[in-house]
Amino acid sequence: MEKHISTFIREGERVDDLQTGGLKIIQNPSWFCFGIDAVLLSNFADIRKHDRVVEFGTGTGVIPILMAGRTENTHITAFEIQEAVADMASRSVSLNGLESRIRIINDDLNHVTNHIDKATVDAVVTNPPYMSGGCGIINPEDQKAISRHEIHCTLEEVISRAADVLKPGGAFYMIHRPHRLVDIVWHMRQRGIEPKLLRFVQPKANQKPNILLIKGVRGGRPELKYMDPLVVYEPDGSYTEEIFRIYGQERIDVFEKRTD
Amino acid sequence: MEKHISTFIREGERVDDLQTGGLKIIQNPSWFCFGIDAVLLSNFADIRKHDRVVEFGTGTGVIPILMAGRTENTHITAFEIQEAVADMASRSVSLNGLESRIRIINDDLNHVTNHIDKATVDAVVTNPPYMSGGCGIINPEDQKAISRHEIHCTLEEVISRAADVLKPGGAFYMIHRPHRLVDIVWHMRQRGIEPKLLRFVQPKANQKPNILLIKGVRGGRPELKYMDPLVVYEPDGSYTEEIFRIYGQERIDVFEKRTD
Repeated sequence: MEKHISTFIREGERVDDLQTGGLKIIQNPSWFCFGIDAVLLSNFADIRKHDRVVEFGTGTGVIPILMAGRTENTHITAFEIQEAVADMASRSVSLNGLESRIRIINDDLNHVTNHIDKATVDAVVTNPPYMSGGCGIINPEDQKAISRHEIHCTLEEVISRAADVLKPGGAFYMIHRPHRLVDIVWHMRQRGIEPKLLRFVQPKANQKPNILLIKGVRGGRPELKYMDPLVVYEPDGSYTEEIFRIYGQERIDVFEKRTD
Repeated sequence: MEKHISTFIREGERVDDLQTGGLKIIQNPSWFCFGIDAVLLSNFADIRKHDRVVEFGTGTGVIPILMAGRTENTHITAFEIQEAVADMASRSVSLNGLESRIRIINDDLNHVTNHIDKATVDAVVTNPPYMSGGCGIINPEDQKAISRHEIHCTLEEVISRAADVLKPGGAFYMIHRPHRLVDIVWHMRQRGIEPKLLRFVQPKANQKPNILLIKGVRGGRPELKYMDPLVVYEPDGSYTEEIFRIYGQERIDVFEKRTD
């Protein structure tokens, strides 16, 4: 007998429809709700049938849920250091009946090799905190701060742990902010993940980027390729065709309501 | 008494008007003529009054001549390894009466510290060969090949020699191809020139970049900023306003005739 949706949620939480394949996500609006980054990253990552995937810092679990929905027979292990957040993500996995394909692990990503053998993973995806550790005023008890700042992990740690678990030839996919590009490619190359593909997201076509998507390959040959920029808005302020294709109209409506 | 223009040129050469302040350039169309890169780079480089500037791989000498024309009291030392090309550049300097401000040195840029004291230079500008050494079929006797390929200097050498002569706080300006971005920022940071500003040139607004302009600062704090992309063409194929502003209509006509 199917459980009633209320058995999955706790006080302060709500269930949102992901507008794709009937997938749903539990969120707590007083914490960090997922945003467009999660959709961009799961769209950018080229995950193939039967891939073993690791995600670092899953938050609500939205990325593995979206990826499971658009791929066949993939298995995703997602790390989340905050216990209450990891618990909520696990309930979202159950709510979608994806327990056999997604495993949420409540642990520091620096302990990844306690859970995953070295050099066994086809792809690592991550939407890590954007702000350098120690910058700004941070309350380390605050879930939003942990999701936004490098409190529990630095960019270097994220990349190093990815390098630990990726197979040779395995792919690393990250979404981040353009001002960290040098740090990103520096740490990637230092850890043997060669940057291979870069896509900038530009608010308008003639504006500088505010988001970057990067793919690296463990042991790859140096040669960086670019995708055409992903332009979000037309000159008149409406969304571009590509944004509609990635999000769908319904999901855009949901985002516009939801983004905190 | 002013010398006649014919006393400056040799067989196979011609004199072109740079369409700015009456400046002229001697070129040999069977070698490598200057292209839009030189104009973009001299426009991008923020050279200030009284700056001491070094250029690596000057070719025709077009960059120091354009920079001297747009700045006050700057002194530019430009290196060119090919003897015949360096000689032609020197004659262009004389033709413009700029001998007191531009010195062309016919030497390997790896010998820069034989001519310039370490840590004394305000800015280094360079439009180095784009192709990795050893790629493709290269005739090392061919002036065009030397200008295009890393035969006499690698990207790493260009950046290392810039680091040798730059003052702390001195600026490094380079134009290059986007697929080398990782190598560029890697060698810059390794040599203590922190990448600080990036500008991509995009043929059209929604297309990936085909040229990059980068500024680094010796000893700078890590934080990469971006300029809005420089878009070359409008959707209808005409030049954008910014390209007109950088080049001027007359010079565009000259380029379209001239580019080899």
